[in-house]
Amino acid sequence: MQDFTMRYPLTLTHILERSAKLFAAKSIASCMPEGVHRYRYADLHGRVHRLAHGLARLGIQRGDRVGTLCWNSYRHLELYFGVPCFGGVLHTLNLRLSKDQLIYIINHAQDRLIFVDSSLWPTLKEIKRALPDNCRFVVIKDEQSASKAETNMDYEELLSTSSDDLFAWPTLDEFTPAAMCYTSGTTGNSKGVIYTHRGVFLHSLALSMTDGFGLCERDTILQAIPMFHANGWGIPYAAFLNGAGIVFSGRSLQPADIARLIEDEKVTFTAGVPTLWMGLHNLLQTQRYNLSTLRTIFCAGAALPAQLIESYEKNFGIRFLLGWGMTETTPIATVNTLKRALDRLPEKDRYNVLARHGMPLPGIEVRIVDDNMHELPWDGLTMGELQVRGAWITNGYYNDKRTEQAFTDGWFRTGDVATIDPEGYMQIMDRTKDLVKSGGEWIPSVELENAIMAHPDVVEAAIVAVSHPKWQERPLAVVVPAPGKTTSILQREINDMLASRFPKWWLPDDIVFIDALPKTSVGKFNKRALRERFRDYRLPL
Amino acid sequence: MQDFTMRYPLTLTHILERSAKLFAAKSIASCMPEGVHRYRYADLHGRVHRLAHGLARLGIQRGDRVGTLCWNSYRHLELYFGVPCFGGVLHTLNLRLSKDQLIYIINHAQDRLIFVDSSLWPTLKEIKRALPDNCRFVVIKDEQSASKAETNMDYEELLSTSSDDLFAWPTLDEFTPAAMCYTSGTTGNSKGVIYTHRGVFLHSLALSMTDGFGLCERDTILQAIPMFHANGWGIPYAAFLNGAGIVFSGRSLQPADIARLIEDEKVTFTAGVPTLWMGLHNLLQTQRYNLSTLRTIFCAGAALPAQLIESYEKNFGIRFLLGWGMTETTPIATVNTLKRALDRLPEKDRYNVLARHGMPLPGIEVRIVDDNMHELPWDGLTMGELQVRGAWITNGYYNDKRTEQAFTDGWFRTGDVATIDPEGYMQIMDRTKDLVKSGGEWIPSVELENAIMAHPDVVEAAIVAVSHPKWQERPLAVVVPAPGKTTSILQREINDMLASRFPKWWLPDDIVFIDALPKTSVGKFNKRALRERFRDYRLPL
Repeated sequence: MQDFTMRYPLTLTHILERSAKLFAAKSIASCMPEGVHRYRYADLHGRVHRLAHGLARLGIQRGDRVGTLCWNSYRHLELYFGVPCFGGVLHTLNLRLSKDQLIYIINHAQDRLIFVDSSLWPTLKEIKRALPDNCRFVVIKDEQSASKAETNMDYEELLSTSSDDLFAWPTLDEFTPAAMCYTSGTTGNSKGVIYTHRGVFLHSLALSMTDGFGLCERDTILQAIPMFHANGWGIPYAAFLNGAGIVFSGRSLQPADIARLIEDEKVTFTAGVPTLWMGLHNLLQTQRYNLSTLRTIFCAGAALPAQLIESYEKNFGIRFLLGWGMTETTPIATVNTLKRALDRLPEKDRYNVLARHGMPLPGIEVRIVDDNMHELPWDGLTMGELQVRGAWITNGYYNDKRTEQAFTDGWFRTGDVATIDPEGYMQIMDRTKDLVKSGGEWIPSVELENAIMAHPDVVEAAIVAVSHPKWQERPLAVVVPAPGKTTSILQREINDMLASRFPKWWLPDDIVFIDALPKTSVGKFNKRALRERFRDYRLPL
Repeated sequence: MQDFTMRYPLTLTHILERSAKLFAAKSIASCMPEGVHRYRYADLHGRVHRLAHGLARLGIQRGDRVGTLCWNSYRHLELYFGVPCFGGVLHTLNLRLSKDQLIYIINHAQDRLIFVDSSLWPTLKEIKRALPDNCRFVVIKDEQSASKAETNMDYEELLSTSSDDLFAWPTLDEFTPAAMCYTSGTTGNSKGVIYTHRGVFLHSLALSMTDGFGLCERDTILQAIPMFHANGWGIPYAAFLNGAGIVFSGRSLQPADIARLIEDEKVTFTAGVPTLWMGLHNLLQTQRYNLSTLRTIFCAGAALPAQLIESYEKNFGIRFLLGWGMTETTPIATVNTLKRALDRLPEKDRYNVLARHGMPLPGIEVRIVDDNMHELPWDGLTMGELQVRGAWITNGYYNDKRTEQAFTDGWFRTGDVATIDPEGYMQIMDRTKDLVKSGGEWIPSVELENAIMAHPDVVEAAIVAVSHPKWQERPLAVVVPAPGKTTSILQREINDMLASRFPKWWLPDDIVFIDALPKTSVGKFNKRALRERFRDYRLPL
């Protein structure tokens, strides 16, 4: 039987054109070094069309990778739409990567063109010789002081010398690659993940669901997640789809900057990693801000202690929404909305549910499996490797032999270890490689870390495996104490608290105190660096 | 460049399996003649699998049309999932159609099997000989008194004799037909519209958007729209997708039944045509119900006067959400959410915006065109034929030569006449064929009707074109007065009110009072019947 639905492709071109028409007057604000830049959706639309003419003039072809090495800003958003709608592949480069990593990634993707903020040009300039011969650069002057960078093209000049006519967008199949991002893994070279128009479109719809992020036209969304990081968690696209007000954070993501922006711009929704919200929470103990417009903070990337969720809700009236995803999952795959029936839970249990990573969005499936790929029960206790499949999950890395290990039977092997409870709430317990394997049993580091970080005198904490003559591995707690705290007292308090809540064999064999935990390029605790630092640590026997 | 998103199909099978797993304990309540039947998502899931085994046993093949002639109930919902997930095409039969129409439709669709409520069996029995030879029947005993209908199979027996094992669902392409529905057009034979899995899936996501219907797990949704009417406006699928509580109305849709159900079941969301909400509004003037749980009523199918929206909001705290769609559009294509900036409008203007039919949902495009297919401006004044295209719009009628007239350049010609304002809010002014063409100019009947119906002593009103020696056509107002009202006074008041608000040449040449307006099988005013009744009406010259 023939089909009878229009073959109407789900593309970013549709999002761009529809939203610019329906929400022409909506505002996009960007924190620039010289102050806040403001313009409207209609302005972005005109400039995106000019950009497309520019790409054509520069000889960019369908399927070409076009890099960006940029901070969050309206011009980055123009590239977010201009490159994919043109038929190119937007390749966001992580500006925190080492030079070696950038060289690897740009060569691997074979970028033809890179748009670079003038403030970041020095990085590229240094590695220029190691990049593909035919790779050219367009410099975005993002600082008043910046001089035009040598012989490179200037972004504003590219736009202003382009035609004023609307660009005739190509008709794209919805499976056309729209963007790509390399994983921020801590082992080996980064792997390239490609996002298709369809994937990003469906992901944007899912974030707009009431039980997704609930994004809507009435929102003013603070984009604090770096746009070089998995499409900025897909939020810029979803924001534009809904006609929401958009605010781009500046380069500094200190809690005080974020708090001030929320207050000044009357932000209703924002998202970020736990470290940021722990920092903001500390700030709010001493500084007063009016954050009353903020309805929700979405948090992912690592665990957030239930106590913090509770404190935000009770003390500041701010609701946390947890979730989980990876570069490979566009990136949001699960979101934690509390089912109505769970409102009746005792308060402590309710916050414990809220601290889980949520249920799979429609279009996404999750499962946990054992080492033999047998599916494990959703009992909230059994830990297994989390696997995921669905409508916006990648099915392979770009030109990378490591694809084979990462996929099985149509499922993506996340490398995360999780439990799923009978209600369907998934909780990440650890990365497979961060698990402490003691005497053949797994000890999940994340639960211990959360418990330690809930102590008021602890700033950050991580658990790492240290080798042990009898048990193969045992857990070591690495803790950053609050300034001026006596570590001997803190050590005793942490030990007592853990002993009261966890099996004896889970308890860390020792606690060391350091000044700060090393972080990855996207702000997560760098466990790999920690493990190396404490590789030879001698545990008390 | 190769694509890199999983080819994960958007199907009803995904919705069924995901929701039954995540929301197993959620409740589905059905008003049956003997009382309210209640069970859980998990119960539905088990029975749907049994149903699939039953379909296989009956020899149903992929692509076969399987009819339903049923009231709203949990068993109809089982068929909503069982037939499409099996790979069949659910063909919902409108139980208000004439026997001739049913005979035409069932033969045209070539239904292999029809599931029929025992209370509706007499209708089918009478026309049985005129139906396809190989069409069989399964009777759903929906009344205690009903005896097993002759030699037909019994639905519960079909299920109870089926295997307990989970059925192995086929892997379906997302463009596979899932359901079909014949239009309720008033001219010629009904036309068959086919819904694909993809179309219904995307439609369900759109209704779940905060700026769609905002459906979510916390909702309890009263399904009052008949399920034989364009998938019950797609709401049962969207409700299940979200894990919402579902309440199926009984056979009577009188305002008092609806009000009682909302109160008893703590309904948060419902939908229906304007006549129902006008009736409920009248009822609420004299009867008290606790409708405090109801957050939103979605209303489409015809215009709803702004005054009614205002009165509901002010007197009963109930928010109306207007929209537009057709059988051909799955059916919801536009929804009216008020942009934040419009909160500042003067109250009267705000309600006038709320009474428009809204903006196209993501994935949908609208335009208005003149007779030469030139696109007309979005100025809120210029009227043109509304055309629509997008991801859940049909691209043709099933085996029907009338497809050609209905589509142009990839756009569906709706036959509605509309304006679109600069903000993108569309407003249906009329059906092309209901327009009054006076001296070469269009007079939109809907605006006049709304104005007349806003009079407190008017129950219903319609404008029809009557032929006129000089102006070709002139408008006649057909009005149903409230009981006991003096029509001569009412006539003068209506004339004065219209004269104060509309151009002189729009004013009806006469007003006639009747007891009730004829309705179509889905509850809209039957203008065709009215036009025939007043075809020879002599207007005062």
